[in-house]
Formats: sequence, C-alpha cells, structure tokens
Amino acid sequence: MQQTATIITIGDELLIGQVIDTNSAWMAQQLNDLGIEVRRRIAIADDKAAIVAALNEELPRCDFLLLTGGLGPTADDITKPVLAEYFGGKLVIDPVVLEHVQSFFKKRNRPMLERNTQQAAVPDCATVLFNKLGTAPGMWFERDGKVVISLPGVPFEMMYLMEQQVLPRLKPRMLGGVMVHQSIITAGEGESYLAEKIVDLEAELPKHIKLAYLPAAGMVRLRLSGKGDDELRLLEEMTAHRDRIVERLRYCVLSQEDLPLEQLVGQSYIDRGKTIGLVESCTGGGIANRFTQMSGSSRFFNGSLVCYQTELKKSMLGVPEELISTHTVYSEPVALAMAKSAARLMASDVGFGITGLLEKEDMDGIPGGTVCMAAVDGDREQCYTVHCWSDRIRNKEIAITHALLFLWKFINHR
Amino acid sequence: MQQTATIITIGDELLIGQVIDTNSAWMAQQLNDLGIEVRRRIAIADDKAAIVAALNEELPRCDFLLLTGGLGPTADDITKPVLAEYFGGKLVIDPVVLEHVQSFFKKRNRPMLERNTQQAAVPDCATVLFNKLGTAPGMWFERDGKVVISLPGVPFEMMYLMEQQVLPRLKPRMLGGVMVHQSIITAGEGESYLAEKIVDLEAELPKHIKLAYLPAAGMVRLRLSGKGDDELRLLEEMTAHRDRIVERLRYCVLSQEDLPLEQLVGQSYIDRGKTIGLVESCTGGGIANRFTQMSGSSRFFNGSLVCYQTELKKSMLGVPEELISTHTVYSEPVALAMAKSAARLMASDVGFGITGLLEKEDMDGIPGGTVCMAAVDGDREQCYTVHCWSDRIRNKEIAITHALLFLWKFINHR
Repeated sequence: MQQTATIITIGDELLIGQVIDTNSAWMAQQLNDLGIEVRRRIAIADDKAAIVAALNEELPRCDFLLLTGGLGPTADDITKPVLAEYFGGKLVIDPVVLEHVQSFFKKRNRPMLERNTQQAAVPDCATVLFNKLGTAPGMWFERDGKVVISLPGVPFEMMYLMEQQVLPRLKPRMLGGVMVHQSIITAGEGESYLAEKIVDLEAELPKHIKLAYLPAAGMVRLRLSGKGDDELRLLEEMTAHRDRIVERLRYCVLSQEDLPLEQLVGQSYIDRGKTIGLVESCTGGGIANRFTQMSGSSRFFNGSLVCYQTELKKSMLGVPEELISTHTVYSEPVALAMAKSAARLMASDVGFGITGLLEKEDMDGIPGGTVCMAAVDGDREQCYTVHCWSDRIRNKEIAITHALLFLWKFINHR
Repeated sequence: MQQTATIITIGDELLIGQVIDTNSAWMAQQLNDLGIEVRRRIAIADDKAAIVAALNEELPRCDFLLLTGGLGPTADDITKPVLAEYFGGKLVIDPVVLEHVQSFFKKRNRPMLERNTQQAAVPDCATVLFNKLGTAPGMWFERDGKVVISLPGVPFEMMYLMEQQVLPRLKPRMLGGVMVHQSIITAGEGESYLAEKIVDLEAELPKHIKLAYLPAAGMVRLRLSGKGDDELRLLEEMTAHRDRIVERLRYCVLSQEDLPLEQLVGQSYIDRGKTIGLVESCTGGGIANRFTQMSGSSRFFNGSLVCYQTELKKSMLGVPEELISTHTVYSEPVALAMAKSAARLMASDVGFGITGLLEKEDMDGIPGGTVCMAAVDGDREQCYTVHCWSDRIRNKEIAITHALLFLWKFINHR
C-alpha cells in the first residue's frame, strides 16, 4: 500500500525569496527510497495561525507529516511551542539535551544563555530526536496513527537527523508500497521530437508507470516513475519498458543513470584512463567547480587555469597577440590555443579551453552570448561554438552545460 | 492594504526531489517588490485532482495565484487543459502564438509536429501572455476579483514572462500596501548571542516590523521585514530601528546590504583598487566560480589556478617538496606558499591560497575537514585554519564561505 507524506517548511525567508529551499528535495528523495510518496510540499511563515492551519489541512491527507524550520533560539522561532500546544503537551527541559547544549557552548568557549537552556525544552508528548550536530533537537509526535516529525531547518542538521533518527524509525512502519524511478538522459533532440519518436511506447505504459520529460540546455531527461507492491516485479516491468525506449532513441542516449552531467563526463574519462586539464575564461572556474563536486575527481581532473584577464591569456598561456587581434578573443582559434596550453600546463592527456562573451550585448562585432570551446587529445582537435540566449548569469550556466556535453562527446567520439 | 499571493509549482519532479525549485524564491522577491505578500508556496504533482484541489483551497485566501509548470508539449503536461476546464473555457488556437511556434521550429530547422501546434492552443477565457523565448504561452485568468496566472516552469521563460507581462499588469492593481526588507550581515558571533545583545531593541519593535535571524557558516544575517501603507514613513521607521541595532552590534557587522558574500568581498577590493589572484586546491574552482557570478568581477579578480594534484603544486607553483614533507600538504605554510605563487602567477596585488582535506576521514594524522588558507599583500601575510565538520560536498561549501570571509577581513584589516 502506498504511504504518503507532506513536507512543510516553515520560515519567512522562504516566502520572501531570501533563501532557496534545498531541504525538501533531499527529504523527498529519502522518503521515496523508503516507498513513501510525497504528495504535497508547502512553505509557510513563522506564524502560529499559518502553522496550525497547515497541520489541520495536511494531517488528514497523509500518513507522515514532516516539518522543518523554526526551532532556533531567537524570538522568530515558534515551531516548538506551537506544536506543544497543538498536541496538548507542555515544554519540559530534557536533561540529556541540556547536557549536550551545555557542552556545545563550553567546547566553543561561549557563554550559555537562558535562551539556549530553552533549546533543551521539549514537549512532554513528543519523542526527542537527539541532534548531535546542533542545539535544536528534532521531535516526533503521533496522533490517530499519523506521525508528525519536526526537524531543524539548517540543512546538515536536518540531514543528520533524517539519516540517524527519522528513517530508521520510519522503516519498520512501511507497509510494502514501493516507488521506483528510472532515467534516460538524452542530448541533441527536443522533447517534442523525442515524445513523437516513442509515442507508441508511451501509450503502452500501464497506469502505475508514468513517463516524464525534463528539458534542460541541450538535453532532455526522461524519467519513468513506477508504483507497486512488489519491488522486483516492478523493476523488471519498468526495465523492459525502459529498454524499448533506449533502443528506439539509442543515438541520442547519453546515460541510463540520472547522474549530474559532470559525473557522466568524469566516468568516461576515468574509464578511458585519460586525465583532463582546463583553461577557463568565461566559465570562471565553473567547470572545475562542477568536476570537484564529485568524490574521486582527482582520478581524471588535473586542474584548471581560470584566466579572467586577456593579459593573462597572453602571458601565462602564450596565446599569440596576433591570434587575438585577427580572430578576437571570443573565437575558436583562441579556444584551441587555450586547449593546447591547458594540456601542457596541466600535464594532461586532454586539454580544454573555453572563451566567450556572456553579456547579452554585442561587443566588437561579436554577438552577445557567443561562447567558443575546443578540446585536444594528442593530435585530435575539435572546436564548437554555442550561442547562449539569456543574461550573463544564466549564460554562464548554459556555457558550463554545453562544455560538459562537448567534453562527453569528445571522449566518446560522438 | 496588504495584497497577498500563493505560488503553486506543478511537477512530479519537485515531489520526488529530482529538481530544486528556484522559481518560487525569485517570484516571491518580485512580488514583494510590488508590495504583494506571499503567504503560501505549494508544490504538487502533474495530477488533475491535485491541481483542482489546490486551486479550490488557495483561491479563497489570496488575491493573486501564480502557477508554474506543466505547460510543455508532452503527455505529462496537463496544466493547460485542467485550467481551461476549471475556468469553463475551451482550447482554441491563437494565430499569433501559432506563427511564433512555427517560426521557432523553422529557425532551428526542426520539423513542426501536431503536438507543437497544440502549444498554440489557449483557453478562450484567458488572456494570452506572449512568450517570446519559448513555445508555451503564459495565461492570465480572472474570476470574482481574483487573478490566476499560469507560467511555464523553465526558469528563463518564467522570468521573461514575469518581467515583460505579469508585473506590468499587476502594478496598476496595487492598493498601496508595501513590504520592505532590510538586512544586517554579521560575522563571528552566534545568533543566540546577537539576540541577547539586542533583546531590548527587539522588544521595542512595533508589530508591523519583524526581526528574523538567518544563521549560516560563520555568519548570521539579521533581517527586518516591515509592512505598511506609506513607504517613506515605513522606511524611515525601519532605518531608525536598524541603525540602533547596527550601532549596538557594530564590531561584528559586515554589511547592511543583503548581498552574496562574494559581492561584499569584491566591492571591498574594488574600493581599495586592489586585484586578487587565487590558487585553489580543495575548493576546486569554487571561489573563482563565486567571484565570476558577479558582473564586473574582472575589475578585481585576475584569475585562479585550480591545482587538484599535489604534483602540480610543486611543478607549477614551485611549492618546495620539503615544505610539503615537513608540514604535510594540508598546512598553513603550504597555503602561504600557494598565496605567494598566486600573487606572482596572476600578477595580482593580493594572493590567496587554500588547501585542505574535505573528506570526513583523517589522513596521515590530519583530522578530516581541516582547511588551511593564507593571503599575502606585499609583505603583509595572514594564515587561518578552519575545521569543517560535515561531509565532503558540504565541507567544500563551508570552506568557500570561510575563504570569502577571510578575504573580506584581510582587505578590511579586521
């Protein structure tokens, strides 16, 4: 049976757009893995009436209600007293939590204030979820077979509590419903075209397996999401459908794993035993930053020289002055010279260079958004130009995505 | 009078955690600037019953209901027909949108499919919000004085439509309520301590001005949020409160503008006419990437050498072998040598180096999470070591934040 959850995030900062909510996505993934379907996600203010209304409305339509935020030591944090009152409990100091909070401040040589003592207060009707990483404990309430879980909004504390306290307690309550997601990452075709190519295969999908299309710059991610009671049978069924789709779309399929693009690229270079070195101009370290997000990237990534000044391109990279004056700095010949320098300076098998004009506005006859890139591997050379259509910040993201795609194609001879 | 909005994001990808919702935060900022308070943000599935339920529940409690997502050309996109039915309209092809969609495919040399023609269909009870950047038009519905606005989920299309079509239409409907946010960015003290220092000032705040605390690695952002009808009077009132808080917390105030840390750092270097060059090891281009997010960063940022291999530290940077073998590669002396190389290689006034062990696990006697950094400016030198407490990915973020804070303090002699 499919069990369901609602995630409620509490905090004015979410409603004024000061903070982007990354907690809910992570929590949803963890809940899905257990077989729990997240039906709704809600953000509300640090406001008693708003919290009570959300509890009243969401409790009847889910099995598990997860809340984050509003557990800090300052006056704007009201989640704990509101929950205590809602569930008819009163706040009492938990001695174990108190000792932890005290040692927390002692270790940091900070004075312990009365408001910190109050962080050790928990409703007597809740189970305390001990928070080793912070001063705000999580809380677990039950009523009429429903579970309400309150966690701090600080991401690493929330993640710690989910992993150590929440998921292990949820596991034995699972009734056997499973959710499975499978992905097909494609590049080079639009979603309409892909949908048309597999229109018959999509029509054949049973009701409990849904197909979704997620387009991004130069790529479309297809996702099959299935629900069922028998995990092995569901997996088998979904894999059969996926295989038919992959077979049909073969020439534009990058991967059947929903991994970040930098991991797909990294894995390809590791598989071929090739190292890579970058010279980045317009992407400003953004490609290096993506590669170094993955653990073990030192197995293929040697480094990047972020050259944000044209002068440095000449002095450090040895890009000839006349190459720049003939072709402009935003050109494939300059990108190629940068790629060669990258291979040499970073002592890498493959060298990559990227240069471009991210601003919307044209400059020196170059259309705004023009980005040129090149890769070299021994005497194999390849260049590519992409025209980004947006503003500076978004063009940088688009350029990074196209650079990663280009590096994937280069190493895979596609 | 305070007008209110609810933002509904539609898409299974949001509920399984495949995608992080960045749209809502941006939309909330824009609405706040107009004086519209966002009371609730909701994410729901591509599911007719879920969409109808959300419309029924949210419409009575807001003036403006903004929806994003579910407008694409594939079968999982159902927002448009659901809205047409909900508002009692029928879908008809809009000739202007059709011509635009046709030219869209023609320009890209792609076949135009029947499903693309359908993207030009709009409910006859809606005002079309013409989408120059994509094939899915936005829609504007009105009923009983309430406005419902449906926008595509692709961020740059949503932003374009908000700026060009939605906000100009909302502006004349504003009834004069204003919302103002003011920020105080602090570093070096915890939120409990700050709250205690200004407990009397917080008690003096009138009901229509709220104070919130947003803690992050090494920093706390204080935010005053005010509501009122007279913008000038509200601003004056808030500024008086803010000035008293700033006066009290002076020694740990970084800024009174809620800018990303990299902009505060960048502005300090620009103000002093100093350029900066980096050598990054553990942050892997993350600092360069943050600097190059800001327009005009070339005014102070010369570049970064991302050295992801110890060998490169020796060969490119000239860090002496014995310095590494004596102190290990994760040490202040090595960071200092990197900083000196950074100033030289990047021809910068200020050189910065960072090296550390991001993994949780200890290595060669170095505790996991140890990050060492150093800066040089002529013969002024400074080193700093931070112990990050989390996993690899989050430690990288913590290291970047501390590096930016360190660079801010270094240039400001704090």
